[in-house]
Amino acid sequence: MQLYLERGFEQTTVAEIAKRAGLTGRTFFRYFADKREVLFAGAGSLREHVLIALQSAPASASPMEAIAAALDAAAEALGGHRERSRQRQAVINANPELQERELIKLSSMAAGLAEGLRARGVPEPDASLAAETGIVVLRVAFERWVTETADATLPDLMRESLARLKTITAGR
Amino acid sequence: MQLYLERGFEQTTVAEIAKRAGLTGRTFFRYFADKREVLFAGAGSLREHVLIALQSAPASASPMEAIAAALDAAAEALGGHRERSRQRQAVINANPELQERELIKLSSMAAGLAEGLRARGVPEPDASLAAETGIVVLRVAFERWVTETADATLPDLMRESLARLKTITAGR
Repeated sequence: MQLYLERGFEQTTVAEIAKRAGLTGRTFFRYFADKREVLFAGAGSLREHVLIALQSAPASASPMEAIAAALDAAAEALGGHRERSRQRQAVINANPELQERELIKLSSMAAGLAEGLRARGVPEPDASLAAETGIVVLRVAFERWVTETADATLPDLMRESLARLKTITAGR
Repeated sequence: MQLYLERGFEQTTVAEIAKRAGLTGRTFFRYFADKREVLFAGAGSLREHVLIALQSAPASASPMEAIAAALDAAAEALGGHRERSRQRQAVINANPELQERELIKLSSMAAGLAEGLRARGVPEPDASLAAETGIVVLRVAFERWVTETADATLPDLMRESLARLKTITAGR
């Protein structure tokens, strides 16, 4: 990622990334489908972590309570390295292809959460609405965390965003 | 779009699309940046239509009421040709690149709605939360409209999804 920051994503070649990481080009492609994937290396394990948290929520939890538990797990996992997250987001925001890839990853996580809710017996459209809304809350909180200077933690901002969402959807 | 359905998106060339539409390749690129854009030709005017509806909502409307007015306009505009919408969605769902493009278009509409809410005096993070949540409601309703066989209209499904969202976020 350091290379992307130094030269910009478009100007960085796979050969350069591999060299910096001490890999051959061939080894690089064993780990990553393309150079966009380097920035989303943690997405698979994050998704798994979040889905396990959803499954582990008490059976009595409402759909939004179960989603909140999953979001807490996401915020804990993502909230450790603010400066690194800031740099990464700056690289992504500067490149439309990376933004597309990010949206697909988030959409895949939303689909996983919706499936997890259906497995808990939540019917449609409730499962999709709760899952996709959860991802919105996470994105908005994450955006605030990387752009604002206040020192609120990501889990704090996530819970605050969820509370705001409740107030807003309640109507007035 | 007929060509995409007949042969699949990947197998269709710009030359073939242009020929079917009675255009030269050069004229094609005057109208569309690439062949993905053909499927999103209406996105710009839809976005404008929806943003005008948001601006036209009464000053007394709450953020979610203003978003609901914008979504009504979107549902009215999109809800006319169910069979055509079904075919189009089948083409998009079969191709990851098209899904990425669709997510970017929806994300751009969400950003426009958030800006429109801020112009109405709604602070952050409320503006982003209401706008992005509105897009979730629209997507879920649209998905049901193109996949379910019941003959509910898109505006009906949209309002029903919004009502479900309120119930879900209220907690139990």
